[in-house]
Amino acid sequence: MLKVIILGGGNVAFHLTNKLLQTGNIQVVQIYNRSLESINCFSSKTKITNNINNLLDADIYIISISDDFIESISENIPFKNKLVVHTSGSVSIKEISNRNRKGVFYPLQTFSKERKVDFSNIPLCIEAENNEDLNTLKKLAIEVNNNCFEVNSNQRKNLHIAAVFVNNFVNHLYHIGHSLCEENNVSFDVLKPLILETASKINTLKPNEAQTGPARRNDKNTIEKHVTLLPENLQEIYTLLTKSIQDTYGKKL
Amino acid sequence: MLKVIILGGGNVAFHLTNKLLQTGNIQVVQIYNRSLESINCFSSKTKITNNINNLLDADIYIISISDDFIESISENIPFKNKLVVHTSGSVSIKEISNRNRKGVFYPLQTFSKERKVDFSNIPLCIEAENNEDLNTLKKLAIEVNNNCFEVNSNQRKNLHIAAVFVNNFVNHLYHIGHSLCEENNVSFDVLKPLILETASKINTLKPNEAQTGPARRNDKNTIEKHVTLLPENLQEIYTLLTKSIQDTYGKKL
Repeated sequence: MLKVIILGGGNVAFHLTNKLLQTGNIQVVQIYNRSLESINCFSSKTKITNNINNLLDADIYIISISDDFIESISENIPFKNKLVVHTSGSVSIKEISNRNRKGVFYPLQTFSKERKVDFSNIPLCIEAENNEDLNTLKKLAIEVNNNCFEVNSNQRKNLHIAAVFVNNFVNHLYHIGHSLCEENNVSFDVLKPLILETASKINTLKPNEAQTGPARRNDKNTIEKHVTLLPENLQEIYTLLTKSIQDTYGKKL
Repeated sequence: MLKVIILGGGNVAFHLTNKLLQTGNIQVVQIYNRSLESINCFSSKTKITNNINNLLDADIYIISISDDFIESISENIPFKNKLVVHTSGSVSIKEISNRNRKGVFYPLQTFSKERKVDFSNIPLCIEAENNEDLNTLKKLAIEVNNNCFEVNSNQRKNLHIAAVFVNNFVNHLYHIGHSLCEENNVSFDVLKPLILETASKINTLKPNEAQTGPARRNDKNTIEKHVTLLPENLQEIYTLLTKSIQDTYGKKL
């Protein structure tokens, strides 16, 4: 039985703890957070503490807090030569204190507390400094969902940027679509099937095979009409993304 | 029984014809296309022609061809005072020839011939110049999927632009994510669950409620790191979309 301690009380920590508590071969020994308030919900299921010096013994310490504090909290773990991992997409494995063995256990998904997260297919990007620790992280991953990928720090950094494009920026484009609907008194429901179909196409087509629209067709009339109709801030986004699509497929305006 | 004739052999025409052939209360009387090749597949199920002067009698003539040719083909329909509709998102109802009654039957979805289209939830945006024709189009819509919205030409124009953002541009961001994966020898499979979850969030949260990431948090360190790592053409997109998110939530760089 792998003994695990979670450090953190944010979204990732919350959902990961929930998942680990359901598995058969992982024992969540303790949860640490600076404030007890956000981890109180787990107090009936495991030990909780807000004093890092009270950390118990475990096989893996999982730091799941804001990127900026990973280094300092790893310094304060009152043990040596333990496996300490973080769950961040953008922080290098090297930022973990040298006093312990280092690793990464990065679940690549978007988490919000109010939305139930289905861990069954979340890719777990793991990294460690030696094979034994990598195997320990694989064991942890198998208990969570058996969908793990070995990803080194440089790959993970780029993957995190890719995630900004396909999640943060994509969601912002949804927001722009939503605003255009609202301004014209059209229900956003009209766009929902399109959004869902666009996403599910990635399961059968490469994105560049699925590309359609005026930029892909180099349909200058429609492009011009659209730009004229848009407010200035959206014109800039429309023009830049249109140009990027045209460059991708070798068609210039 | 509503008698329908389809004019066109592209993706929308293909899928719409397929759907209409399956319904009980619509009779697809004929399909017209300039070239018979792309409509030959329907020759066992209905009449086909490449001569517009041979068009038969019907209740609705559905023009489903490239935007630029809608006006001229509508001029060439050899009838008067018939209901003639097009299926385009960006063409005004007015571009249909005055010799017939005008309407729009715009299925808002992304179509590719190689991918099966599920018409069961595609929003059908309808418009007509009088109530009787609107009711005829509603009858047609009910047979297709009963998911229809009355959308006038100005709303439809804006909806089409919104669709460019949430489909064409979103798919291009998927392509950028795909490229970043390829360049770093990471499987695109790692990003797929994130893409699907980001899309399905729109069913429970407004896009602006679902927004996460460094731009939303105003996490300048991460933003700077990302920009430094990206090639120039992607830097521009990253910076502009980051700024747009920050402007949306009132945080400036």
